[in-house]
Amino acid sequence: MKITYYVASSLDGFIAKEGGDVSWLDELGVSMSDTGYEGFYSTVDALVMGRKTYEFVVNYGQWPYGDKPVWVCSSRKILPMEGCNLQEGSTPEDVYKTATEMNIKHLWCVGGGELASSFMEAKLLTNIYLSLMPVLLGSGIKLFGNLPSDVMLNKVREKSYASGMVQLEYAIK
Amino acid sequence: MKITYYVASSLDGFIAKEGGDVSWLDELGVSMSDTGYEGFYSTVDALVMGRKTYEFVVNYGQWPYGDKPVWVCSSRKILPMEGCNLQEGSTPEDVYKTATEMNIKHLWCVGGGELASSFMEAKLLTNIYLSLMPVLLGSGIKLFGNLPSDVMLNKVREKSYASGMVQLEYAIK
Repeated sequence: MKITYYVASSLDGFIAKEGGDVSWLDELGVSMSDTGYEGFYSTVDALVMGRKTYEFVVNYGQWPYGDKPVWVCSSRKILPMEGCNLQEGSTPEDVYKTATEMNIKHLWCVGGGELASSFMEAKLLTNIYLSLMPVLLGSGIKLFGNLPSDVMLNKVREKSYASGMVQLEYAIK
Repeated sequence: MKITYYVASSLDGFIAKEGGDVSWLDELGVSMSDTGYEGFYSTVDALVMGRKTYEFVVNYGQWPYGDKPVWVCSSRKILPMEGCNLQEGSTPEDVYKTATEMNIKHLWCVGGGELASSFMEAKLLTNIYLSLMPVLLGSGIKLFGNLPSDVMLNKVREKSYASGMVQLEYAIK
């Protein structure tokens, strides 16, 4: 199974400000049609996210991921939002096992950074697909949480956009 | 005057491990001839670095920057290494004033991240020239220290290398 951490970050490696604020992405004025998001999303069979990311999506008001299966990794009980095809399972290993049984070919690890590190640590993450934004934030939530060791990457794709965004896809060695 | 922060970082935004270790750069096996460093260095008239970066260079054993003028921003007294054309001045403003008087056209801000932030905060940094390495470190010394506000960037150059390194140059808006 391909498991891709597809995410946007600032040039200095932050995916959100402290507290989860991602309004800096809107302020950059990069419209969704300029990001290749829909092309990526169409390749995804299912999603996994951490609790804070899930709550961020829930607070957004409408479930944006249709009926694609979604796991929320959390030790707490998660209440499914209306329209959300929530699956059972709270650890990367749980998710991998169930997703394999469901014949999921491509799982999107939505984030945040701590969840991506958990998938890395469990040796389940296969790809990183980073939209590198032309902005510095200086502080915030890191692209990854702490990692047990350095992780070497193979670059597999690179695309530049008029907005200044650079998309880089890497396979994890 | 053009002031460029030319530096290598991991994909997740770290320029060194805690304590300043940059051996991960060697472990990537990217030889200097593959990085375009010499082309950049030939455009540089002078250098500025923080005390820790200076001490790292001094510990390397031989001064590598010829007779190009160099400033070391530090509140402590700096002892010049043999062969080092050390200039007076300990703040970004000092350096800018003296470098202007010396008719320096291109100043390389070598680092580290805290010094780059100081130049940013003083509104003196004009360019970032980042060699983005195909590795994740998870923690370490950040590309920039904290910043007073978000910094918007204009991408001016991009080049990819067979090693997986991507060089990105941005002008600071």
